[in-house]
Amino acid sequence: MSSLFTVGETMGLFGALAIGRIEHVASFGFGIGGAESNVAIGVTRLGGAATWLGRLGSDATGDMIARRLRAEGVHTMDIRDESFTGLMVKHRRTGETMQVDYHRAGSAGSRLTPADIPSDLAGASLLHLTGITPALSDSARAAVFHAAETARASGVAVSFDLNYRSKLWSRFDAAPVLRDLATRADVLFAGPDEAELIVGAAGTDLPAALAALGPVEVVVKDGARGCTALLDGVPAKLPALPVTVVDPVGAGDAFVAGYLAARLAGWAAPDRLRQAVAAGAFAVTVPGDCEGLPSTSELDDMSFVDVRR
Amino acid sequence: MSSLFTVGETMGLFGALAIGRIEHVASFGFGIGGAESNVAIGVTRLGGAATWLGRLGSDATGDMIARRLRAEGVHTMDIRDESFTGLMVKHRRTGETMQVDYHRAGSAGSRLTPADIPSDLAGASLLHLTGITPALSDSARAAVFHAAETARASGVAVSFDLNYRSKLWSRFDAAPVLRDLATRADVLFAGPDEAELIVGAAGTDLPAALAALGPVEVVVKDGARGCTALLDGVPAKLPALPVTVVDPVGAGDAFVAGYLAARLAGWAAPDRLRQAVAAGAFAVTVPGDCEGLPSTSELDDMSFVDVRR
Amino acid sequence: MSSLFTVGETMGLFGALAIGRIEHVASFGFGIGGAESNVAIGVTRLGGAATWLGRLGSDATGDMIARRLRAEGVHTMDIRDESFTGLMVKHRRTGETMQVDYHRAGSAGSRLTPADIPSDLAGASLLHLTGITPALSDSARAAVFHAAETARASGVAVSFDLNYRSKLWSRFDAAPVLRDLATRADVLFAGPDEAELIVGAAGTDLPAALAALGPVEVVVKDGARGCTALLDGVPAKLPALPVTVVDPVGAGDAFVAGYLAARLAGWAAPDRLRQAVAAGAFAVTVPGDCEGLPSTSELDDMSFVDVRR
Amino acid sequence: MSSLFTVGETMGLFGALAIGRIEHVASFGFGIGGAESNVAIGVTRLGGAATWLGRLGSDATGDMIARRLRAEGVHTMDIRDESFTGLMVKHRRTGETMQVDYHRAGSAGSRLTPADIPSDLAGASLLHLTGITPALSDSARAAVFHAAETARASGVAVSFDLNYRSKLWSRFDAAPVLRDLATRADVLFAGPDEAELIVGAAGTDLPAALAALGPVEVVVKDGARGCTALLDGVPAKLPALPVTVVDPVGAGDAFVAGYLAARLAGWAAPDRLRQAVAAGAFAVTVPGDCEGLPSTSELDDMSFVDVRR
Amino acid sequence: MSSLFTVGETMGLFGALAIGRIEHVASFGFGIGGAESNVAIGVTRLGGAATWLGRLGSDATGDMIARRLRAEGVHTMDIRDESFTGLMVKHRRTGETMQVDYHRAGSAGSRLTPADIPSDLAGASLLHLTGITPALSDSARAAVFHAAETARASGVAVSFDLNYRSKLWSRFDAAPVLRDLATRADVLFAGPDEAELIVGAAGTDLPAALAALGPVEVVVKDGARGCTALLDGVPAKLPALPVTVVDPVGAGDAFVAGYLAARLAGWAAPDRLRQAVAAGAFAVTVPGDCEGLPSTSELDDMSFVDVRR
Amino acid sequence: MSSLFTVGETMGLFGALAIGRIEHVASFGFGIGGAESNVAIGVTRLGGAATWLGRLGSDATGDMIARRLRAEGVHTMDIRDESFTGLMVKHRRTGETMQVDYHRAGSAGSRLTPADIPSDLAGASLLHLTGITPALSDSARAAVFHAAETARASGVAVSFDLNYRSKLWSRFDAAPVLRDLATRADVLFAGPDEAELIVGAAGTDLPAALAALGPVEVVVKDGARGCTALLDGVPAKLPALPVTVVDPVGAGDAFVAGYLAARLAGWAAPDRLRQAVAAGAFAVTVPGDCEGLPSTSELDDMSFVDVRR
Ligand SMILES: Nc1ncnc2c1ncn2[C@@H]1O[C@H](COP(=O)(O)OP(=O)(O)O)[C@@H](O)[C@H]1O
Ligand SMILES: Nc1ncnc2c1ncn2[C@@H]1O[C@H](COP(=O)(O)OP(=O)(O)O)[C@@H](O)[C@H]1O
Ligand SMILES: Nc1ncnc2c1ncn2[C@@H]1O[C@H](COP(=O)(O)OP(=O)(O)O)[C@@H](O)[C@H]1O
Ligand SMILES: Nc1ncnc2c1ncn2[C@@H]1O[C@H](COP(=O)(O)OP(=O)(O)O)[C@@H](O)[C@H]1O
Ligand SMILES: Nc1ncnc2c1ncn2[C@@H]1O[C@H](COP(=O)(O)OP(=O)(O)O)[C@@H](O)[C@H]1O
Ligand SMILES: Nc1ncnc2c1ncn2[C@@H]1O[C@H](COP(=O)(O)OP(=O)(O)O)[C@@H](O)[C@H]1O
Repeated sequence: MSSLFTVGETMGLFGALAIGRIEHVASFGFGIGGAESNVAIGVTRLGGAATWLGRLGSDATGDMIARRLRAEGVHTMDIRDESFTGLMVKHRRTGETMQVDYHRAGSAGSRLTPADIPSDLAGASLLHLTGITPALSDSARAAVFHAAETARASGVAVSFDLNYRSKLWSRFDAAPVLRDLATRADVLFAGPDEAELIVGAAGTDLPAALAALGPVEVVVKDGARGCTALLDGVPAKLPALPVTVVDPVGAGDAFVAGYLAARLAGWAAPDRLRQAVAAGAFAVTVPGDCEGLPSTSELDDMSFVDVRR
Repeated sequence: MSSLFTVGETMGLFGALAIGRIEHVASFGFGIGGAESNVAIGVTRLGGAATWLGRLGSDATGDMIARRLRAEGVHTMDIRDESFTGLMVKHRRTGETMQVDYHRAGSAGSRLTPADIPSDLAGASLLHLTGITPALSDSARAAVFHAAETARASGVAVSFDLNYRSKLWSRFDAAPVLRDLATRADVLFAGPDEAELIVGAAGTDLPAALAALGPVEVVVKDGARGCTALLDGVPAKLPALPVTVVDPVGAGDAFVAGYLAARLAGWAAPDRLRQAVAAGAFAVTVPGDCEGLPSTSELDDMSFVDVRR
Repeated sequence: MSSLFTVGETMGLFGALAIGRIEHVASFGFGIGGAESNVAIGVTRLGGAATWLGRLGSDATGDMIARRLRAEGVHTMDIRDESFTGLMVKHRRTGETMQVDYHRAGSAGSRLTPADIPSDLAGASLLHLTGITPALSDSARAAVFHAAETARASGVAVSFDLNYRSKLWSRFDAAPVLRDLATRADVLFAGPDEAELIVGAAGTDLPAALAALGPVEVVVKDGARGCTALLDGVPAKLPALPVTVVDPVGAGDAFVAGYLAARLAGWAAPDRLRQAVAAGAFAVTVPGDCEGLPSTSELDDMSFVDVRR
Repeated sequence: MSSLFTVGETMGLFGALAIGRIEHVASFGFGIGGAESNVAIGVTRLGGAATWLGRLGSDATGDMIARRLRAEGVHTMDIRDESFTGLMVKHRRTGETMQVDYHRAGSAGSRLTPADIPSDLAGASLLHLTGITPALSDSARAAVFHAAETARASGVAVSFDLNYRSKLWSRFDAAPVLRDLATRADVLFAGPDEAELIVGAAGTDLPAALAALGPVEVVVKDGARGCTALLDGVPAKLPALPVTVVDPVGAGDAFVAGYLAARLAGWAAPDRLRQAVAAGAFAVTVPGDCEGLPSTSELDDMSFVDVRR
Repeated sequence: MSSLFTVGETMGLFGALAIGRIEHVASFGFGIGGAESNVAIGVTRLGGAATWLGRLGSDATGDMIARRLRAEGVHTMDIRDESFTGLMVKHRRTGETMQVDYHRAGSAGSRLTPADIPSDLAGASLLHLTGITPALSDSARAAVFHAAETARASGVAVSFDLNYRSKLWSRFDAAPVLRDLATRADVLFAGPDEAELIVGAAGTDLPAALAALGPVEVVVKDGARGCTALLDGVPAKLPALPVTVVDPVGAGDAFVAGYLAARLAGWAAPDRLRQAVAAGAFAVTVPGDCEGLPSTSELDDMSFVDVRR
Repeated sequence: MSSLFTVGETMGLFGALAIGRIEHVASFGFGIGGAESNVAIGVTRLGGAATWLGRLGSDATGDMIARRLRAEGVHTMDIRDESFTGLMVKHRRTGETMQVDYHRAGSAGSRLTPADIPSDLAGASLLHLTGITPALSDSARAAVFHAAETARASGVAVSFDLNYRSKLWSRFDAAPVLRDLATRADVLFAGPDEAELIVGAAGTDLPAALAALGPVEVVVKDGARGCTALLDGVPAKLPALPVTVVDPVGAGDAFVAGYLAARLAGWAAPDRLRQAVAAGAFAVTVPGDCEGLPSTSELDDMSFVDVRR
């Protein structure tokens, strides 16, 4: 069966349950976060098969992440490391701002190595990588390149979401690494800013500029403005669906999961994009990172118009 | 004194206190729901007298409902049944959708019988029925018709809210029953969809088409678009008041309570409609079903414009 | 591989998060309950394989139960029924009392039929049944007997927990049915009261009296007093472990899961009992029904003496 | 060093954590409120030095207020009185209304006397007073006038926020007192209504009319419409910043703190106004009274446009 | 019908929902408190009829108290006063201490006057007074004496609970007033300390010493030690029931309600005491003041031994 | 004035608000933890002066810690580091166990260096160190020794709490380091296990064995068994105060703070111990780490016997 394999760091995520100074917030929820595992969960909810591999600490947070991923039906290859599981702390000082802090330097997840990558990529037909992992450590960066090369060598398609994180490295450090990875991808996802980071101020046709690096499927996702794409040489453009935003975090991962699940299921390009756009819209209407990833039936039910009773 | 008598099922209502998958919701509030008891509470809060009759289970939920209705000042004729009290579960998968599930088949409330209806209708001058009760069971349907006939025989006015519930029966099954009941009503409330269910695609003048069935007071309530009516032959139209919606559920019952309380108090048609529209608007600004029913002083205070301090 | 198969009703469980009158409780948690699925979860957490089969409604509660059981690693055969998913409501009027109400009559779970039982019992080596299911409906009772016969016919061992529930049927109605089922069991679990229900006031040697009905493994669990047993003709007695009770509900299911997981793993009789007693003790130290079922590593860690830091 | 001195009543503030009838609200937060201490906290957060003086009861609320103000870095001169600490109760009957009740008559804070005011005004260069304190009691009114005279006699600038509170006194009683205090001020803050209270229907140029009473710096704050001012003879007008309102209470105090902190730091008039407007906008995006007072770095970070990640 | 009439102050009660410094407590519940209204609610829950009279402020707290008492079935004669409704703040600094602060001086409730007392005592057969009200103000004291005299003049029995509150007045001030009232009582309740306050170090026979002042029914309640009594000349002694204490506040009022409800129902002395002791025990097993007052069926159900399921 | 100086790591602390598997816990509180800052807060609450120095990340948690310590009146010398602020996660799988995980390797706090230590030790008369800091990193260990030497060179007394943490290093690695530090201390605190770690199985007189290493004040704290000591050559022994344990964490720090605050105030040895024992007892009656540190007035109020009202 066609399935997805992804590698990356998954962290515990403490999220403030109210707006205000962090010391005035009375309680926090505890969930999980990580772009790659979000995509794995998203693909599973949309009917696909997915394997996630990563390092976790031998602590309650690590146990919780492993149980939670298995609970979602993701095939979970968790390597237990002697370092701690990374944590994220998310709060909103005001109704208009959101701050996420990463407590992850030196974490278990950042200690990924090339040797961690199974040579058969767990039998997957599609490998998904992000630009976050190479920023975590030298060995993690090596692991990502090793995974990409392994995939290419065995005819497994490579999906890559640029996901530039300014808290982890400078644009200067990131650009060449991300560009290198983009050239190894078959499917490429980017925001406009990220695209410019690797193709320069390339005029307005970002999909074309990115496709010139190699990928035959390029999607530029652009928040409430929707997305533009160049898929097998055919340009496409889809507006976002009109919804009321509850929590903007997680849209990108939902979008990617929507696209890749459709791809695994063999859907045509326009249908892939449509599912991606619907999944991204769904995600922003739900608080939390992975809580907002929709299932197939939830996407079907979603009218995007009115409260149903 | 002029007062309202109503019969129906009242249930316990568990409502999710946060948005998301039901298994990610940390806590639920517990209240009560039921269109008829909502109207009875609403009438009481607006200064009228109301009696509610229905069957409840011999469980904590049944006790709670009886105490809560008495606490609201509703004269409560609760018949304890050996079956369980029905429950509703309400959650919001996203900020844009609301799902209500009914755990009521075979419940105490559905086992209402004609013999439960007191022959003097508790001395009321107005009987209020809904299209929900006849969908619950054969005996409940018989009870509703029996109540309507009893009222007509003794000169008690009959109010009927179509309240078609697709989860309980098909349009095909419901249409003849609801039409039959409508012909027995003096005061009729309907949404546009419900109106079409019983009068067919009747052009645009729904109040007139409904009035042709018999009722001399017909009100078509239409959410944020307000309402149109035909009252003693005089057409009327009122826009909704501009408010920010917190929870759309409960507007219809508040509206009906606003209208009927005014009618019991002997107000003129335009004033009845005005109070109905204000009560409906008030209801959508408060979370919960019966929590949003306003009192007279609350309606007076309500500026519908600005936060008062 | 040796594994467990069990059939029964699983319900949504709303549990009050504070002590007091149900209308003074501000919030409720939402989990799942059901003796058979508790045992299945417990066996899975303790390293065994388990399949649960039952009927669920097509509502959010039914979806939640299916996802939650899958999340626990239980192989879940949920049959979707047109009736609603049963619900339990649990509250504590005082610190000394706990009341559980069942909103289940006519529920999806009670509509189990013999035809629902797969002829291969999902390939299991052990069938677990309880005395709750035969009390739910005629077809459910037939299903339980059918499952027991199917197992016996194919050499699959039958485990039976008497689990008499006075809210579902009288002692008079229950006794012959439970006795019939006990005679079909290889492994039998009972409380002292339940034992007396089917063997009469049989002096003090309840295990022997029960074994006389047929089962070769009999365990009488007796709350804080521990348990007595007759296993392959050898009597045994184990005191309970000394712990501070947080929530007494769920001890029995944890105990049974502890015993059966050990049995599936081929452990000797004394080790089975020891794990049963440890699991039962663990369960009462945790609020919630299935939340208190321990994993192997949790049982290992548990010192039952002191708070560890 | 230049610093602020302010006198007034600070109360405990219980605020409903959900919308609805006060008896349906499950939980309340507990904070502190008081226009003068809000300004003192706001000035401190924006890098200035501030002293607050007032009377508190010898109860847990009084202790909490003193600890909380000290925690904010406000130099706190709390005089313990034998009466109780005043309390405020804040709730929202609907999503559109907010009600604040004061449980303060005869409270410790209202028993302020002229003798409480230190003759050196704690070494401050700026005294801030509001129109609330003179409404609390005769001795409190005398204390406010005494503080103003003391400041004027020693060359300390006087800032005065009219802050008319209709729950404390009538417009008729308040007008002459507030006018008297305005004539003693160097810096004057008013809302349009308050301005009209003391200068009459003065055409549209309220700043000029107020300045005619004496103050050389006059700012008329006008909610979402921003503010107009006459500063050292130069008129100014600034629109409000576009934000989504979470809680409108506290904008005025944040605005005043923004202005006065800038003044203490020696900033030019346009910069003072700009900081005032930014602080006022920040405040409405955060629930709570003093929780919404921004720090310098928070104002810098605030983009007022988009959620930052 | 025989019924109870009581007068006193009822306040809003904010109670910390967790242990710790008041500023570390994240949320507070909001209920009502007042010894007299507690007794009225308790009597009503135990099947008796009760009227409460008192002054409330025109604020949300006052409205809430009136609605809450009516909801309990207490006939409520609330006089709206221009002062604020008194508030109580309850928190636990540690698991072993509880602090209650009263924010009530000058409150609406303290402004009770003799003229507020209806000359027919609302048709009651029993008047209940406490030693709290005379400590609130001169007019409240006069009102209490006036009520007692009115009762005596018309043959209505007088019940009096000494309820000495050290936060309101000194032992020196209280003693003569409480003694005066005790001489006017037919039924007298006291703790050992309170008894000594008015009869001096009277040896060990406190009930006899108190009865010497006039009352023919004297009950000395003594917490976990139970109670001693002298009823119509017959001494009695009852141990407390063994329960686990959740919240000790409210036992006294529940005890008095249990006694008086039994007296109104015409029960014999030993049965009155038995119900009093059961109600007191019930109360300490429930958090909150009036939440712990039992109903008849709750007392019946209560096994005081084990958690029931 | 005599004051305390202490150095160490302070972390954010997420603590589960309910018992159970970490993924079933709905909400977490957020506070701060760190043995040294706990002692600093404790000393301040007991009337002493204290300075804390340490490294914090430039994240919301770091800001919160600095504000919270300042709020407690601790003179706070926070050095902002480019690494993240360490976090602790605390939960209770059962009512009998507590698990704390540290997410701190490589954290800001662990990057302390000798150069961070001010040569005047902030003018303190007493330096407090723990055995935690030397386990964090080489530079942190060097910093601790450097601080001890600096103190000794300038006649500042050195207090040392062994605080062996098995999660940070092995007994084998820790023993020589902790012993070395103990020889540099004037005041030494140890648990029995920790004492044995550095003095071997030294018979039963642990205080004497520890004093032989150099310190003239030695206190062996032993949980619910109280403490033994050798102070200036005089042996002492104090039982623990009888209290009900709510949260055992934090007793040791409260005990040390009680002792050191008394020492700074110049109290005699027996009084120091008495305050230490009272503070330790107080701490276990309150949930949270630093929340349980008592103030002088709280210790005075504490009856340790009964709930006060
Ligand atoms: N406010 C929104 N409304 C509707 N759809 C949105 C919204 N924000 C994002 N989406 C959808 O999700 C996709 C990814 O969102 P985006 O914000 O670009 O991702 P990222 O999280 O990677 O920054 C968008 O292309 C769009 O289709
Ligand atoms: N969003 C809204 N804003 C203002 N008033 C509303 C709103 N929704 C409903 N109402 C008022 O309540 C009435 C009944 O609402 P509606 O939604 O039609 O009832 P129902 O709950 O029966 O569907 C409307 O006619 C209108 O007057
Ligand atoms: N309070 C307790 N302390 C320790 N172990 C207990 C306690 N209660 C139950 N157990 C263990 O769990 C087992 C089953 O508990 P029991 O209460 O008999 O089950 P059931 O839930 O079926 O009534 C007991 O035999 C005992 O080993
Ligand atoms: N809705 C808003 N949006 C943006 N800024 C606001 C808003 N409300 C108030 N402000 C700012 O705060 C200032 C003071 O607010 P205002 O409501 O006038 O004060 P007050 O609380 O004294 O009534 C305004 O002049 C404006 O600059
Ligand atoms: N811990 C307890 N256990 C059982 N019953 C109690 C307990 N505390 C009080 N009671 C019952 O309630 C009665 C009144 O309690 P008490 O504490 O004396 O009242 P008060 O609240 O007036 O101080 C006692 O006489 C006893 O019967
Ligand atoms: N359960 C308890 N009851 C009363 N006092 C206690 C209790 N636990 C600790 N203490 C007091 O606190 C002191 C320190 O506690 P301990 O547990 O030894 O510290 P640590 O947290 O360092 O392990 C003890 O010596 C004792 O005085």
